[in-house]
Amino acid sequence: MIDAGIFGATGYAGQQLAWILHNHPEINIKFLNSHNYTNFQTNQVYGNFNGFIEEKYVDMDEAINSLNEVDVIFLSLPHGKAFEITEKALSLGVKVIDLGADFRLNNKEIYETWYGVNHLAPSLLGNSVYGLCELNREKIKESNLIANPGCYPTATILALAPLLKHKLIKTDSIIIDAKSGVSGAGRSANIASLYCECNESIKAYGAPLHRHTPEIEQELGKIAGENLMVSFTPHLVPMNRGILSTCYGSLTKAIDEEELQEIYREFYKDEYFVKILKTLPETRWVRGSNLCHIGFRIDKRTGRVLVVSAIDNLIKGAAGQAVQNMNLLFGFKETTGLEFLSMAL
Amino acid sequence: MIDAGIFGATGYAGQQLAWILHNHPEINIKFLNSHNYTNFQTNQVYGNFNGFIEEKYVDMDEAINSLNEVDVIFLSLPHGKAFEITEKALSLGVKVIDLGADFRLNNKEIYETWYGVNHLAPSLLGNSVYGLCELNREKIKESNLIANPGCYPTATILALAPLLKHKLIKTDSIIIDAKSGVSGAGRSANIASLYCECNESIKAYGAPLHRHTPEIEQELGKIAGENLMVSFTPHLVPMNRGILSTCYGSLTKAIDEEELQEIYREFYKDEYFVKILKTLPETRWVRGSNLCHIGFRIDKRTGRVLVVSAIDNLIKGAAGQAVQNMNLLFGFKETTGLEFLSMAL
Amino acid sequence: MIDAGIFGATGYAGQQLAWILHNHPEINIKFLNSHNYTNFQTNQVYGNFNGFIEEKYVDMDEAINSLNEVDVIFLSLPHGKAFEITEKALSLGVKVIDLGADFRLNNKEIYETWYGVNHLAPSLLGNSVYGLCELNREKIKESNLIANPGCYPTATILALAPLLKHKLIKTDSIIIDAKSGVSGAGRSANIASLYCECNESIKAYGAPLHRHTPEIEQELGKIAGENLMVSFTPHLVPMNRGILSTCYGSLTKAIDEEELQEIYREFYKDEYFVKILKTLPETRWVRGSNLCHIGFRIDKRTGRVLVVSAIDNLIKGAAGQAVQNMNLLFGFKETTGLEFLSMAL
Amino acid sequence: MIDAGIFGATGYAGQQLAWILHNHPEINIKFLNSHNYTNFQTNQVYGNFNGFIEEKYVDMDEAINSLNEVDVIFLSLPHGKAFEITEKALSLGVKVIDLGADFRLNNKEIYETWYGVNHLAPSLLGNSVYGLCELNREKIKESNLIANPGCYPTATILALAPLLKHKLIKTDSIIIDAKSGVSGAGRSANIASLYCECNESIKAYGAPLHRHTPEIEQELGKIAGENLMVSFTPHLVPMNRGILSTCYGSLTKAIDEEELQEIYREFYKDEYFVKILKTLPETRWVRGSNLCHIGFRIDKRTGRVLVVSAIDNLIKGAAGQAVQNMNLLFGFKETTGLEFLSMAL
Repeated sequence: MIDAGIFGATGYAGQQLAWILHNHPEINIKFLNSHNYTNFQTNQVYGNFNGFIEEKYVDMDEAINSLNEVDVIFLSLPHGKAFEITEKALSLGVKVIDLGADFRLNNKEIYETWYGVNHLAPSLLGNSVYGLCELNREKIKESNLIANPGCYPTATILALAPLLKHKLIKTDSIIIDAKSGVSGAGRSANIASLYCECNESIKAYGAPLHRHTPEIEQELGKIAGENLMVSFTPHLVPMNRGILSTCYGSLTKAIDEEELQEIYREFYKDEYFVKILKTLPETRWVRGSNLCHIGFRIDKRTGRVLVVSAIDNLIKGAAGQAVQNMNLLFGFKETTGLEFLSMAL
Repeated sequence: MIDAGIFGATGYAGQQLAWILHNHPEINIKFLNSHNYTNFQTNQVYGNFNGFIEEKYVDMDEAINSLNEVDVIFLSLPHGKAFEITEKALSLGVKVIDLGADFRLNNKEIYETWYGVNHLAPSLLGNSVYGLCELNREKIKESNLIANPGCYPTATILALAPLLKHKLIKTDSIIIDAKSGVSGAGRSANIASLYCECNESIKAYGAPLHRHTPEIEQELGKIAGENLMVSFTPHLVPMNRGILSTCYGSLTKAIDEEELQEIYREFYKDEYFVKILKTLPETRWVRGSNLCHIGFRIDKRTGRVLVVSAIDNLIKGAAGQAVQNMNLLFGFKETTGLEFLSMAL
Repeated sequence: MIDAGIFGATGYAGQQLAWILHNHPEINIKFLNSHNYTNFQTNQVYGNFNGFIEEKYVDMDEAINSLNEVDVIFLSLPHGKAFEITEKALSLGVKVIDLGADFRLNNKEIYETWYGVNHLAPSLLGNSVYGLCELNREKIKESNLIANPGCYPTATILALAPLLKHKLIKTDSIIIDAKSGVSGAGRSANIASLYCECNESIKAYGAPLHRHTPEIEQELGKIAGENLMVSFTPHLVPMNRGILSTCYGSLTKAIDEEELQEIYREFYKDEYFVKILKTLPETRWVRGSNLCHIGFRIDKRTGRVLVVSAIDNLIKGAAGQAVQNMNLLFGFKETTGLEFLSMAL
Repeated sequence: MIDAGIFGATGYAGQQLAWILHNHPEINIKFLNSHNYTNFQTNQVYGNFNGFIEEKYVDMDEAINSLNEVDVIFLSLPHGKAFEITEKALSLGVKVIDLGADFRLNNKEIYETWYGVNHLAPSLLGNSVYGLCELNREKIKESNLIANPGCYPTATILALAPLLKHKLIKTDSIIIDAKSGVSGAGRSANIASLYCECNESIKAYGAPLHRHTPEIEQELGKIAGENLMVSFTPHLVPMNRGILSTCYGSLTKAIDEEELQEIYREFYKDEYFVKILKTLPETRWVRGSNLCHIGFRIDKRTGRVLVVSAIDNLIKGAAGQAVQNMNLLFGFKETTGLEFLSMAL
């Protein structure tokens, strides 16, 4: 049994994390921090916690003062807010899983360019491990600072990794057209996130300079063994949860779908959370689970491959993957607390 | 470990049942029957089963021939279809949990009047127990034939039981205005259930003679100790899951909300799945769980009490309650396999 | 051709008003006022105005200074904000149509009790006319200050008026269970109105003391010829637009549905915007129109009548009715600019 | 005043057409044909027609027998069903606007390959004009057989035409990632179109061989002056209406967004229905209108241009464009009956 604390526990990812950790047999939640809801009881903010999780959210000071009582902390904070807490926690021997962007990019300058803030803990960039468990499992196990991947990068990198590993697509041909449910925009009181502004509409946003772009390029580049650039366009879809990443690449050689099925199934053969489909994925089949569904089609006419992946942005794209990382960090079975399937509807 | 079979496993309640039983530590699913998808693999119909439940749906004959291999069957079939299977199963010592309406009404004539079909197994009506666990727990434990309650009656009876038990409302004053998500209409290819016909609209339907009316009246009457009639109006709401039952009654005496809180909390004090709120319920807080949330308001101006309850129609209103009944039937802990909270969004 | 100004033109009702007035052949929009978007161009806030309405929102001072350039103003402001503007406008001979609540209740004390603010222009309460055109047409024509009805009251009063006029229901038996789309909550950046908080859920709110209660009671009382009280429970439904008002009353005498059809059709026989159905209404059939659909059922078992009405809360429940009032005030054909049907989906 | 008939008037495009023609000042609807609802009254199927359009749908025979009473017919039928009616109508001097696919592809073999049926009226392929009004206006005016464009092609061709006309993108680099609301799937009682199957999910479908592909290629090829192939992936989005087409192409030369604005605005400078935005489009701003919004971004890093267009699939993508074509055919002002803006929410 280990003790954990959550910073930013009232955001959508943070509350999902509390939900998962509550059900996790090896975890004791020591504190839940919230900026906006300090001293509120959890079930006043999230009614699903009624009768199950009924403690008070603590403020930042109290949470930091409790660092010496926990084994691990999860940071679900806006970017730029993780530096100090992380340094303090690590100095106390507390492991850190950051769901934000502060330790994902290996390069300080790239971080500062894309995020527009100074990086205040650059010395930690060498220590942090990009926590995409399926690709970095062994490094994660030995780390004490995990940069939990972004939601779009998780879906996209898992979709494209086998192609790049096998050099099956041209590295300058990658186009990623991704779609996210509204929870990806977070629980902030913005006009743009109101029900009537999102419902019955779809839009592209943030292109071509969305902040997940360098993260995708960095990790895909490592797999490809070369620097690469992608076109990445996120869209907002009227649904609560889910990411669908539709990826295009020009094939380097003719290949048929059966061969590609073999390659993908081999690549992910030991992965509990990645399922290779013969159909194209739908986000509903993974909603509420830590799974990633991947399907593809080869277009012989154009010589392109179409790969589509689906995840739940709050679980495999955030809180679930964070717990998967925690399981690795502490030597638990990787799937512990994460074995729930999607409820389909 | 016991063996179970599901008849009608591709309907929305049936698939939810497969999902719950798959996760239940004491259950082995022996067969899944489907009329429309015989010989399909489960994951062809429900993609969330990919990699987890991948067997073939069997036809009715094969399912019936397998009755001697199971300890319990769940029937998730249209009304009028449970008679023969139930008789056969009981004769083989197999316990039966019927999610349909065929054994809910104690009176053959009332069944035939409201459902418009002949009741072909009237001798079993004396044996069947109305499986609303919170109210009939002891009888359920000793039964072998459970009539799993309808979704609207579950929410409504739980909401009104304390008031009627304590004779706090006039029995001729009850009005029930209920709202359901679209999954309540089932997985049939009807125009009226198409996305574009249900989305962005709300309507009342079936009133004043919806078939859940006599079921509500029968069970509320037992609690009140007298025959009673209610006005019951169901509505269709553009969401997948959830029932909200808004109930009105004229108080027999002045009472304040604090007293009523005490009465409700006392009434349900040992119930894991029923939560009494100080706020009014929202279906999202119970969606994906076996919980029932209940809240109320007293209107001193009009002398009426307003009680609102919320459940997930596919879980507490169908498959979850069926498993709760099964747990009672077989002496498992009542909450086994049902301890998942709502994911909130 | 008359000149009009809108105060509060960026709220959901205000923008709908701009839309309708833009298409109205007799109206020239002189100014659009907005507090939050002063100096923004209209199409920056509402993209549907691109290429059609592209002027700047003006602040309150500029709007008030322009009063002498217009014939009529529409106020779509929070309650308590209409007093001063109204007095100024009337003194200049400008007619006022207030979409808010400040002039709906005839009694100053009742207003102050329910709204919790002082009424600063009580002398105008005698002048203002409750702008439910179907019931108060002649008074409206002679007025210069219209209190445009609330959305819930519009649907509810139209539903119940024929019953009360004919003394067919007991005045102490009225229960109103109403459901609204999320636009009814307005365009404010509240957490509770976020997409993920409203989607896939239904809840009751505000009961039993929602501020539309005294308005409903006042107007129904006038029709009944006696004071009366109602139980009124509003609900929030995951859809953009629409109100469904489900009303219950105990019949004073036996009557069948055919007779009631006659009574309703006779009552509304000259009304373009009210349609009496043989089915129960669905909000989709009126969404995007100024129509009110009414249907009903008699429950012989309980002796109650169920009346259901449907409107678009932003049109017949706000901006459309405001324009209908304006047409009456200025002697235009009552339906001018309002003859668009619902687009169904 | 001209007389019109609609074949297939109860489908989603067909009912939208009835709605528009009902409001059109120059049109008298002579008959509405429906296969599934023959002899039903229109308002029994579409409640929004209550009190406005209340006639009976006629069967195919009666509709064909009425051809000599009309000036124009609209065909909103499944592909393969337009051949015979079209020949008959043209022989009687009746103009034909086909909303289906039967006359869109100039080449009989390509039609038969992609649609899997024999083309039974190949001699008409030379006569038919592809009815994308903005590009083919003059030809349309002189024709008597209009092939009304598909919904995806309309949005996509309008988005890419200026780029191809100016040879700004490589013709082998075009990737089209399109998203449609569920009404695009039609009003058929399919499980896949049920509310609970579409809601809260997004999926790609039909790729890489969706039937709109050759149509897009044919028309873009004409603009480019060379044969070309595109990658086209449609997606299903949980909303009633709307298409968003996200298009990618590799620039042939460096260009900045200001220059591109000029090019697009010049290209569409006389077009009432096409609006060039500085932002990226959202489908809600065009929903319920005949408009097409187009926006774009240049990605200097990758040398690609991103063009996004939005239409209402039932209006500019079907019924609205059909009426636009009719207006051209009969010499009415092109915008007659189509001047309604989107209602935004």
